[in-house]
Amino acid sequence: MIDSKIIIENLKKIRENSPLVHNITNYVVMNNTANALLSIGASPVMAHAKEEVEDMVSIASSLVINMGTLSSKWVESMLIAGDKANSMGKPIVFDPVGVGASAYRTETAINIIDKCSPSVIRGNASEIIALNSQAKTKTKGVDSTDSSDSALESAKSLALNTSSVVVISGETDYITDGKKVVAIENGSSMMPKVTGMGCTSTAIVGAFLGVSANILEAASSAMAVMGISGEIASELSKGPGSLQMNFLDTIYNLEGSDIEKRLKIRNEGF
Amino acid sequence: MIDSKIIIENLKKIRENSPLVHNITNYVVMNNTANALLSIGASPVMAHAKEEVEDMVSIASSLVINMGTLSSKWVESMLIAGDKANSMGKPIVFDPVGVGASAYRTETAINIIDKCSPSVIRGNASEIIALNSQAKTKTKGVDSTDSSDSALESAKSLALNTSSVVVISGETDYITDGKKVVAIENGSSMMPKVTGMGCTSTAIVGAFLGVSANILEAASSAMAVMGISGEIASELSKGPGSLQMNFLDTIYNLEGSDIEKRLKIRNEGF
Amino acid sequence: MIDSKIIIENLKKIRENSPLVHNITNYVVMNNTANALLSIGASPVMAHAKEEVEDMVSIASSLVINMGTLSSKWVESMLIAGDKANSMGKPIVFDPVGVGASAYRTETAINIIDKCSPSVIRGNASEIIALNSQAKTKTKGVDSTDSSDSALESAKSLALNTSSVVVISGETDYITDGKKVVAIENGSSMMPKVTGMGCTSTAIVGAFLGVSANILEAASSAMAVMGISGEIASELSKGPGSLQMNFLDTIYNLEGSDIEKRLKIRNEGF
Repeated sequence: MIDSKIIIENLKKIRENSPLVHNITNYVVMNNTANALLSIGASPVMAHAKEEVEDMVSIASSLVINMGTLSSKWVESMLIAGDKANSMGKPIVFDPVGVGASAYRTETAINIIDKCSPSVIRGNASEIIALNSQAKTKTKGVDSTDSSDSALESAKSLALNTSSVVVISGETDYITDGKKVVAIENGSSMMPKVTGMGCTSTAIVGAFLGVSANILEAASSAMAVMGISGEIASELSKGPGSLQMNFLDTIYNLEGSDIEKRLKIRNEGF
Repeated sequence: MIDSKIIIENLKKIRENSPLVHNITNYVVMNNTANALLSIGASPVMAHAKEEVEDMVSIASSLVINMGTLSSKWVESMLIAGDKANSMGKPIVFDPVGVGASAYRTETAINIIDKCSPSVIRGNASEIIALNSQAKTKTKGVDSTDSSDSALESAKSLALNTSSVVVISGETDYITDGKKVVAIENGSSMMPKVTGMGCTSTAIVGAFLGVSANILEAASSAMAVMGISGEIASELSKGPGSLQMNFLDTIYNLEGSDIEKRLKIRNEGF
Repeated sequence: MIDSKIIIENLKKIRENSPLVHNITNYVVMNNTANALLSIGASPVMAHAKEEVEDMVSIASSLVINMGTLSSKWVESMLIAGDKANSMGKPIVFDPVGVGASAYRTETAINIIDKCSPSVIRGNASEIIALNSQAKTKTKGVDSTDSSDSALESAKSLALNTSSVVVISGETDYITDGKKVVAIENGSSMMPKVTGMGCTSTAIVGAFLGVSANILEAASSAMAVMGISGEIASELSKGPGSLQMNFLDTIYNLEGSDIEKRLKIRNEGF
């Protein structure tokens, strides 16, 4: 069972150990995810050249693969880095941004999951449904048109098929290994109005994977910290511009007592 | 004749229909333009791989081509996407960033206009003058050294030659199809101190093209919303940093009454 | 000897002349460094295509080469641009981001220094130590794990070997030509929590190189303005999110009296 105590403990470990998180991610969010990782206490490195991704994986605690603005050269590097991470036993979190919106995205996502065996797959509801069905019909661009509730069965099935922990972010965040389900109901409706909040979640999962060997705990801790920080930041914000700024301040200043007070979590199947 | 009523109606359509806007744009502004599109109520997708741009155009309402940090692979994808948009009758807005500053930019801009037949071309005064004259002497980098007034004749000529609506952004924004001219005098002198405000204008034109078949109205509505939002945001800001943030909050919260009260528009040749 | 008078004079020159600074830099920081250059009064251009970098160097006052998210195509363009800048006598500032973290970064950094003869090399303590020793053992990602004091001897040695002015940014910033040393003790401990603050320093060095032929003065002026602006902005900020914003506002509004009041500078060997 995952509770505030575990989450607070994991957050403390990030701040104490400052895990190096290697990101191969998209152009849109690089600045924000690097800043979110710094704000939570981790150390980000963004590097994608095939000449060096193995070296970076070697010194990193975890690897984030995000296919947001994918192209063939980048995918090549993602696969090299993923292979290296596997061979060294380092955890990978994969963000299949916009899977289903183009044939190329669907093929690439399936290929990455197949070759890299990510510990965690995080997407929005539409992405998780598309990925599970390998269908190309449901995703409209990169924003979700489905509710996270409707995607839960897809997430469970995907988790069992891939041996990954699957995370759906949405009004309710679900984290599942296919049997156990953690549901987190923090957050704010303004968060999807800031680009890359999902990508930031994925990077934060990477930070927690760098300090915890329990994948379900790491992913759930990340989503709880994201949701609670987004919730507090939204209360201070007039719109998406100030939310983007306040989110970084909030995650930087987040205290255990904020987590204790605000956490809305349900554990199922434990 | 374009008035506040038309602009408010078009803004409402964006918020109701959330048009998917496909952006092939530059690295500097991707985060900001995605956020501006989300803040106004549209749904942005950033994708540039030649393997998928046709798929993205197929599901999008409009296409934004911005050559800010161009390179040969990206230009190749711009042309593929533009061709697809043309074949499907989807509107394109083109931003010839820095045209005239290098021979490569000038050639590329002319090539894109020739092959993609954009519905709208938006630039600053120096860019529009350079593009119309195909001269390489006037543009200093990507910031304008000319006034928008001095570029109006170039804009008219360019519009007639290309059958595009041409937009000059500057102290006064001009929108023209070569005969009719709409002049908008909103905005603030601090806006050029935020990088990519012009690119954001272009993306916002893309959002309006996604909901209005009247090109002149769509482009004018976009520039009015940009100018008024920038004006309000500047009044709240101590410098370019807070302007960048307040701009997103303002566009997110913009009301019809703001447009009615503040719009400074002149219609000529209607 | 460098004092507040020289720094204020150089800042004034940037605001009056608006030097065009050509940046070949990394994806993570492009938006921020462009905004910092605009805020201080310079005009940034970001361009990396090999087809145009020579044209851009030709119209620019200085060239910034930053290898943060390097790849082979970009390095090729950096070398072409550097060669052009040398042939035209235009100053180059080089930022060896993460040198030592991968063999590829180390080779590339040495190659760029060798071929481009930068006027200024700016890095954090770990980078300067790694670069001087060509060792690959000390750098952990892109964040420094060494103090700037411990790197000063490396900086002096590197400066003498490369005939560059070397800048270490850290708790104390050091600027040295190998003999003279300028130490600046402004800044704030929150600055390393904002991604790319070092890259912004490098870009700001580029702005000062565009208006001053005295390399040591230009680099020292840049670091003083960075440190003082960061210090003022930190006092106004609750966390890294607001610091990133307030930093731009502060540099935009920075007055001579702020520099006079706050500057903590030591000149050695003059």
